[in-house]
Amino acid sequence: MGALRLASLNSIIDLFPSILGRSHCLHNHRRILSSPPIRRLVAQSTAEMAPTAPDSNQAATSQKQGSQERVITPRSEDFSAWYLDIIAKAELADYGPVRGTMVIRPYGYAIWEAIQDYLNVKFKETGHSNMYFPQFIPYSFIEKEASHVEGFSPELALVTIGGGKELEEKLVVRPTSETIVNHMFTQWIHSYRDLPLMINQWANVTRWEMRTKPFVRTLEFLWQEGHTAHATPEEAEQEAMQMIDIYTKFAYEEAGMPVIVGRKSKVETFAGADTTYTIEAMTGDRKALQAGTSHSLGQNFSRAFGTQAYENGQRQHIWQTSWAISTRFVGGIIMTHGDDAGLMLPPKIAPIQVVIVPIWKKEDEKTGVLDAASTVQAVLRAAGIKVKLDDSDQKTPGWKFNFWEMKGVPLRIEIGPRHVSSRSVVISRRDMPGKQGKVFGISMESSVLEAYVKDKLDDIQSSLLQRATSFRDSNIVDVSTYDELKEAISQGKWARGPWSASDAEEERVKEETGATIRCFPFEQPEGMKRCLMTGNAAKEVAIFAKSY
Amino acid sequence: MGALRLASLNSIIDLFPSILGRSHCLHNHRRILSSPPIRRLVAQSTAEMAPTAPDSNQAATSQKQGSQERVITPRSEDFSAWYLDIIAKAELADYGPVRGTMVIRPYGYAIWEAIQDYLNVKFKETGHSNMYFPQFIPYSFIEKEASHVEGFSPELALVTIGGGKELEEKLVVRPTSETIVNHMFTQWIHSYRDLPLMINQWANVTRWEMRTKPFVRTLEFLWQEGHTAHATPEEAEQEAMQMIDIYTKFAYEEAGMPVIVGRKSKVETFAGADTTYTIEAMTGDRKALQAGTSHSLGQNFSRAFGTQAYENGQRQHIWQTSWAISTRFVGGIIMTHGDDAGLMLPPKIAPIQVVIVPIWKKEDEKTGVLDAASTVQAVLRAAGIKVKLDDSDQKTPGWKFNFWEMKGVPLRIEIGPRHVSSRSVVISRRDMPGKQGKVFGISMESSVLEAYVKDKLDDIQSSLLQRATSFRDSNIVDVSTYDELKEAISQGKWARGPWSASDAEEERVKEETGATIRCFPFEQPEGMKRCLMTGNAAKEVAIFAKSY
Repeated sequence: MGALRLASLNSIIDLFPSILGRSHCLHNHRRILSSPPIRRLVAQSTAEMAPTAPDSNQAATSQKQGSQERVITPRSEDFSAWYLDIIAKAELADYGPVRGTMVIRPYGYAIWEAIQDYLNVKFKETGHSNMYFPQFIPYSFIEKEASHVEGFSPELALVTIGGGKELEEKLVVRPTSETIVNHMFTQWIHSYRDLPLMINQWANVTRWEMRTKPFVRTLEFLWQEGHTAHATPEEAEQEAMQMIDIYTKFAYEEAGMPVIVGRKSKVETFAGADTTYTIEAMTGDRKALQAGTSHSLGQNFSRAFGTQAYENGQRQHIWQTSWAISTRFVGGIIMTHGDDAGLMLPPKIAPIQVVIVPIWKKEDEKTGVLDAASTVQAVLRAAGIKVKLDDSDQKTPGWKFNFWEMKGVPLRIEIGPRHVSSRSVVISRRDMPGKQGKVFGISMESSVLEAYVKDKLDDIQSSLLQRATSFRDSNIVDVSTYDELKEAISQGKWARGPWSASDAEEERVKEETGATIRCFPFEQPEGMKRCLMTGNAAKEVAIFAKSY
Repeated sequence: MGALRLASLNSIIDLFPSILGRSHCLHNHRRILSSPPIRRLVAQSTAEMAPTAPDSNQAATSQKQGSQERVITPRSEDFSAWYLDIIAKAELADYGPVRGTMVIRPYGYAIWEAIQDYLNVKFKETGHSNMYFPQFIPYSFIEKEASHVEGFSPELALVTIGGGKELEEKLVVRPTSETIVNHMFTQWIHSYRDLPLMINQWANVTRWEMRTKPFVRTLEFLWQEGHTAHATPEEAEQEAMQMIDIYTKFAYEEAGMPVIVGRKSKVETFAGADTTYTIEAMTGDRKALQAGTSHSLGQNFSRAFGTQAYENGQRQHIWQTSWAISTRFVGGIIMTHGDDAGLMLPPKIAPIQVVIVPIWKKEDEKTGVLDAASTVQAVLRAAGIKVKLDDSDQKTPGWKFNFWEMKGVPLRIEIGPRHVSSRSVVISRRDMPGKQGKVFGISMESSVLEAYVKDKLDDIQSSLLQRATSFRDSNIVDVSTYDELKEAISQGKWARGPWSASDAEEERVKEETGATIRCFPFEQPEGMKRCLMTGNAAKEVAIFAKSY
């Protein structure tokens, strides 16, 4: 928050020092030409830092389509450049024409759809209904809850002209919907019999962010926001916990992300909440990414908006929660898994779980190979597996291997002329490079093939979670003094230590180390503890880390 | 379009003359109190015309909960008042705090979800991928296509302040996405091998409409917009036709709406399209409602944005389509079906297909009845039927009968103490009032009950379509002169007659009769025709009607 920063060319270079000047980022002239003239400086620099458009000219112009062509920066070399390369080359997203906005491309959007499909079912199973609130909120609404306006006012986009006329009251483009939700709840809730009221909406939201990064922080993003109203604080608390639990399960079981679940410190609590619960993911560069939050709002908004319910002639302000997961989660998935060769997607959320690459040299081999490949595709599709047959003849098999590896497809099936005669295929795991993950002679017989593929997808799903969990655990250091904390943070790790110090001291840690309290984890060590900063008694350990 | 109209109290009274002064519309004081002060006049008048909030106080305050309580205006008495009553009392939507905006409530949103679920599958089956474009569009983009800017500029909402600073270039809040889509297509499309590019997005859009009506025309609405790029005009044309065909099938087979499918006149064509195809629904008050459109965009946007593809060294502008269905369709469903008692939903899109109303008088009957009702609920739910058990003891069975009838639930099952002993239930059809639609003694045995219910749901589905088709056909008059046309329109009907006259004459019909050409229907009578206006040869008949 704080003072406004206008993105200058310098600040942009500052944000992404590693990718400026890299040759493959500099040829997207078309974008520069079509940028609106007024924003030229920013647009131009954006173009320079932008991932390149999918290189469809490659086939036509490139002389070497072999398997050795390097299209992305290795992850081990430069994590941030790797991330942006993946976004571009795996065709997950592209930059929109307005600074900080993002176009979510089909492959990236399909990951978001997998997130939606899972959560939507869970939300309904737990009694929530979907609905939709308008995105334009009267400015006066935002001002009603004191800490809410303080938190959000620097980030607002305002509509001031509608239908050609200056508006009498500025309209806020929804940064979150607590205010308008409460305005409506106040009209719908009268008696305690109207409670609990439990709703959710899938929507776009706008926050005028200065330091943007695709998926992780964009000016506009997609999310779901749940809003509930309850008769008692206990019920609201139980709801907030239930929802963070659903998010946690999704992260572990579907996305293979061993998030740390816990409670935010007072400093980091949502603007308008009593308590914020969070899931914090560790990315490949060992930063923390807040991947989902659930807020116990207390009576803060119901008091500001007069949302009351009667029972036995008594009026009482209602108790509320709100909770959200956004397209940022897609960024979390990308940054959790992957290697130098590219993305690595957990099978349960992968848009393509199996890619089939047919291989032929002579024209007379082609029909047999493609027929076999189509049959295999049909078998797997019938078994409910998301399968893609890459039968294009524009690219070599080697190019395709690299491309689909880079896109993170969990399993690859190769079918050549020899396999047609032996009625067997070669299957390679994305998570095990080279020969280690390659198995020959898997029968094409449908029941055998189906069982093998499903089994391997399960293996990959748990293997990715296991790998991420080991990585996480080897990068969290238990500390008992501030010096140890500083040491851990300077090594790029997370520090976990007892904490009962003041907000000011929390602020000092941030200033001196760049790390913030990510959460007080629900899982706490037993026994007596001493605050790492003050030496006073501490009830809990906190986790400190640098974050996105 | 044309000059801006600010909504004054007078203009609002003009729009809804029938509902002002009706007592049940005037007691929503809470809304007035919480409206932002600056917009008081508009907000207040909106409040007066607003459907009342769901009457949750009813149970607590009402003395008469019997079956005779009239909660909505009869459809036969005042269609417009009936529609607004239904929106409010069936809890489909509510007014948002900003004039012209709408909150879509769970019951209304569930109908939209049914539309989404069906279309989303069809779009994917026909090769389209979902993605997401930013909603903020640089103002300069809108100006690039001449007729597009002419069509849309009076309706734009503009963001002029972001993050506390005046923006250098105003941002348009998406009224439709052709411009930003083409900006991106220009970066993604290089060779003919990149074609066809077929995408869709589910999104909110904003149009600064002055005359709003829930679902039918709101300042912000939800829709899907498909955008495709092709190598040839034939392929684009085929795509535009394919999509209007998908919409047509949906209307007939799912929504029970016998829409007329055809081509728009030049005057009524989308701003920026070569050809617009449309499906036109006839509402219960015999107006036309444009329920979905598919546009063949030609090269209009590709020329404006320089979207070109190479083949054999040749550059050519691509050929495009766009197509959309919005939450307006929900309004179409409401206005097509229904009667004096309320809404009538086609089973395939009904959020609740069967409601179970348990009936008991003495407390010792309650357990047995509720047990049987739960069993019936479980049986139907297991069969994939959307079933609701209304076991609340706040309302009488008579009140519940009326309430769920008003909500348009296709089938009602009654279970009383006698039915528990006879192991049978009473089933009533929503589309056949009174005894005619009531059948006694349907066995609770699961296979019998399931088969009976499914069969009746199918019957209702086709019966609603049949009824709407008869209604439509009896309200379209074939005309061969302008006098006959005027006569038909003045009787509130649609007129179908040969047309080859000029745009100016089309404009004259609109001015003199209030009717516009809804479309040149695909289904055309054979043989030689003479234009109803000029007597010249005419290739086609057009359909004229007053419209929403």
